[in-house]
Amino acid sequence: MEGAALTRRGLLVGIGAVGGAGAMYAAMGALGLAPAEQDKEFVAPRPGDFALRGKGAAKVVILGAGVAGLTAAYELGKAGYDCTLLEARSKAGGRNLTLRGGDRLTELKGPAQDVKFGEGLYFNAGPGRIAPWMVTLDYCRELGIPIETFINNNAAAYVHTNGRTVRARTARADMYGSVAELLAKATDIGALDKVITKADQERLLDFLRRFGDLGPKLDYVDSDRRGFVKFPALDTGTPIPPPGTLHQILAAGTGRSITNDFGYDQASPMFQPVGGMDAIVAKLTEAVGQDRIRTGTKVTKITSMADGVEVVWNGGSLKADYCIAALPPHVLARIPHNLGAQITSALATPVPVAAGKIGLEYSRRWWELEDRIYGGVTETDLDITHIWYPSHGYHSERGLVVGYYNSEREAELYGALTPEDRRSRALTQGKKIHGEKYRQNVLSSVSIAWERQEHIQGGWVRWPDFDSSFTLLQRPAGRVYFAGDWLTHLIAWQAGAMESARAAVTQLHQRVLQSP
Amino acid sequence: MEGAALTRRGLLVGIGAVGGAGAMYAAMGALGLAPAEQDKEFVAPRPGDFALRGKGAAKVVILGAGVAGLTAAYELGKAGYDCTLLEARSKAGGRNLTLRGGDRLTELKGPAQDVKFGEGLYFNAGPGRIAPWMVTLDYCRELGIPIETFINNNAAAYVHTNGRTVRARTARADMYGSVAELLAKATDIGALDKVITKADQERLLDFLRRFGDLGPKLDYVDSDRRGFVKFPALDTGTPIPPPGTLHQILAAGTGRSITNDFGYDQASPMFQPVGGMDAIVAKLTEAVGQDRIRTGTKVTKITSMADGVEVVWNGGSLKADYCIAALPPHVLARIPHNLGAQITSALATPVPVAAGKIGLEYSRRWWELEDRIYGGVTETDLDITHIWYPSHGYHSERGLVVGYYNSEREAELYGALTPEDRRSRALTQGKKIHGEKYRQNVLSSVSIAWERQEHIQGGWVRWPDFDSSFTLLQRPAGRVYFAGDWLTHLIAWQAGAMESARAAVTQLHQRVLQSP
Repeated sequence: MEGAALTRRGLLVGIGAVGGAGAMYAAMGALGLAPAEQDKEFVAPRPGDFALRGKGAAKVVILGAGVAGLTAAYELGKAGYDCTLLEARSKAGGRNLTLRGGDRLTELKGPAQDVKFGEGLYFNAGPGRIAPWMVTLDYCRELGIPIETFINNNAAAYVHTNGRTVRARTARADMYGSVAELLAKATDIGALDKVITKADQERLLDFLRRFGDLGPKLDYVDSDRRGFVKFPALDTGTPIPPPGTLHQILAAGTGRSITNDFGYDQASPMFQPVGGMDAIVAKLTEAVGQDRIRTGTKVTKITSMADGVEVVWNGGSLKADYCIAALPPHVLARIPHNLGAQITSALATPVPVAAGKIGLEYSRRWWELEDRIYGGVTETDLDITHIWYPSHGYHSERGLVVGYYNSEREAELYGALTPEDRRSRALTQGKKIHGEKYRQNVLSSVSIAWERQEHIQGGWVRWPDFDSSFTLLQRPAGRVYFAGDWLTHLIAWQAGAMESARAAVTQLHQRVLQSP
Repeated sequence: MEGAALTRRGLLVGIGAVGGAGAMYAAMGALGLAPAEQDKEFVAPRPGDFALRGKGAAKVVILGAGVAGLTAAYELGKAGYDCTLLEARSKAGGRNLTLRGGDRLTELKGPAQDVKFGEGLYFNAGPGRIAPWMVTLDYCRELGIPIETFINNNAAAYVHTNGRTVRARTARADMYGSVAELLAKATDIGALDKVITKADQERLLDFLRRFGDLGPKLDYVDSDRRGFVKFPALDTGTPIPPPGTLHQILAAGTGRSITNDFGYDQASPMFQPVGGMDAIVAKLTEAVGQDRIRTGTKVTKITSMADGVEVVWNGGSLKADYCIAALPPHVLARIPHNLGAQITSALATPVPVAAGKIGLEYSRRWWELEDRIYGGVTETDLDITHIWYPSHGYHSERGLVVGYYNSEREAELYGALTPEDRRSRALTQGKKIHGEKYRQNVLSSVSIAWERQEHIQGGWVRWPDFDSSFTLLQRPAGRVYFAGDWLTHLIAWQAGAMESARAAVTQLHQRVLQSP
């Protein structure tokens, strides 16, 4: 998704290049862009910052009680609408799913899993983290959901690439040290003389010394940033063996892992609701009214008419003034409707992506006790992709590690296995990083393959291109509105679902207020 | 302190260079170094991992009930010793000081401050964060002190240098982008051809593209890592204005700020006790026994004799078998003793360093509501040095910002002001970053100048050199042992005080067990 944001910016850069800063700022004005992020006039969201103005009394049927559907119902409810949510699954929340002891997880084409986690343990099987700029945090504030840090970057976690395991701090120090040394030496031999002034070269060298922890000869020999076998205390500590050669450092292939949190959506700090992500579902459901949500209701037909919309499901039907379809596009695409061929084609455009996770419950928190890893993520080039350590419950007895969080091909591979085989494979992979203890003291586990979850059938979707199909569905088709993270550039984030729901209800409400 | 750890490592690197890896590993064996940090045999501390073996019934007088003194008393108590702590201040804890509403803070040569913070708010006036490898966390676990994340690095916080304020994410993206582009281009024109192979150049370029978010021409034009005026959602968002020229980026001088957490002691994640750092003092005091701590007891003489040690204070004296002097060295140096001129000279060697902090209580958490800063640190080149935002109490009504945390010359400057003037100056400086709102809604404030705290008189100490004075005081002088962070390479960290206390009680206990 990172690349998607460049279009508009690219335009500005282009204007800047040809016309200079003046032309660029003029263009920014024309595009309605604020002059700077630090604009002191900026008024940020506050409790109830989003509210539809004026009251609307229309009846709205909402398809899907995931985060988009619930948000739409919540906002419409605040504005006086009469909403009914039709949810095909047995409970609300959609992909915002937190599993606890006593839960049962069923799967298409696979056995059900009984969750056996101990008291107080939970597994966020869907979304697990929230960036601070996301609207999700505003809903946490508005709904009174306590939040805590989700550690997304831990210097003490590992990087496992090309069969080799090092601490993230070591991988980072070595790559930064190498880059700094190479550039410092290139500068030193005059390779930049035609590019930047001597004064700027001095500034650059000053930065590189700091950035790479370079020695007096501008060389990266070693750095205590790499970590210790025994950290300094009474003496200067016991360092880990010194870095390999430049070739060894480059060949280790840690680059992807150590830049994993550089994106605006992954940058630290991140957050999570205390006690499980489904606190958001619980609070939205409470605010909407549990009685407005009809679970087990699988929609089979949607008809938009001049005076309303009719929705038929397995065992009933309902007529409302408007409909908000907040289902995954590939699920929606299979429901017969009268919205036209373009809509059918647009709904079939985004491609569902497989995604999977396993929660491993351990009887002891060996990652804290032995590895001194408190929260965070180990990045790997194995098919498990990531290992997440819990960012809560520190120093308690048990704990839950996410043994894999993968997508696409790797997720399909795990998804095709039985729960036992997924676990066994995950433990075998994790052992390569943590040793035999990774396979010991496992009390229970649960794995999810989102592409095998009924009525969801995917972790998220990928648009081949954010083209006219994308923008078409951001507008209503007759009396039917669409909502979901898949209609935003925040795909796979709850914030996307919420932003999309806000956009849909805003459009719907304006129409109601303008109707005779 | 970063540079201090290089001696032993430097030796190894030297051996490696001359004799190859074989010689180096042999040398490591000789030095007693474990082969690698990932050694699976490593057994980490666990509850009660540190315990003196065997019981000792001696009587020990401990001077100072700071973290070192309390830890010594705690460990000796577990092993059966009879300890008495003499504390000159009115309560235990030393620099581990958390201020709350109702507290009163006195100061040498200055007016007292009444703390007026609202219910539930606290200000860690001394230590505020714990690295996960530090023994401090083991004591939190052993003593049942709940911990939570202290956010030490926040992409959304600001960097203020040379009069310019940008988000940390922007400063980082620009510096990394610039470095990556320069090195990529140097590589591209063949400047590294004699240094690394073509294959390694490809690996390097692959990393640099990722690291700097470079474009197809290996140039850093822009990056959505820099942040947005409006983040992507329905559209690709509204970017902040594009980066300046390479010269502007280098001249911005953000280098120090964006590498602030690179050290092994500052790397994320870090932690804090829930509810205030003094939870450590409270739990240690409870375990030691409040009745063993005599506050308001200013020691005036220490005499080590053949059969014991005598300590005289303002209004009494006490004889014990051993003494542990856990006072700051410059305070200890002023107490008459019979331990010899070398001890006197050694105690006078470390130089006390001024350090100061101010806690600003605001009636609204504008940094979360308007700046989307949840915890973390804004780095500045102003005399306030840092601004800390609270890593707890998110979304609550009030909050406490640390408006400066400085040392040396800057701390002396603030320390010399009245509390009102410190606050006024801190608000004026902070306004440069946050605008007028920084001076609004301030409900109360408290500032501390550690060099003006009676019986402490410094934030920490600086050893001109870790020479024989340092190692001399790590051993007993007669029946007197010394303890404190100042006797370790973890100066200004509670972990230093704790490690030093463990070392002192271990030596003392061995002596007791070996005595007839």
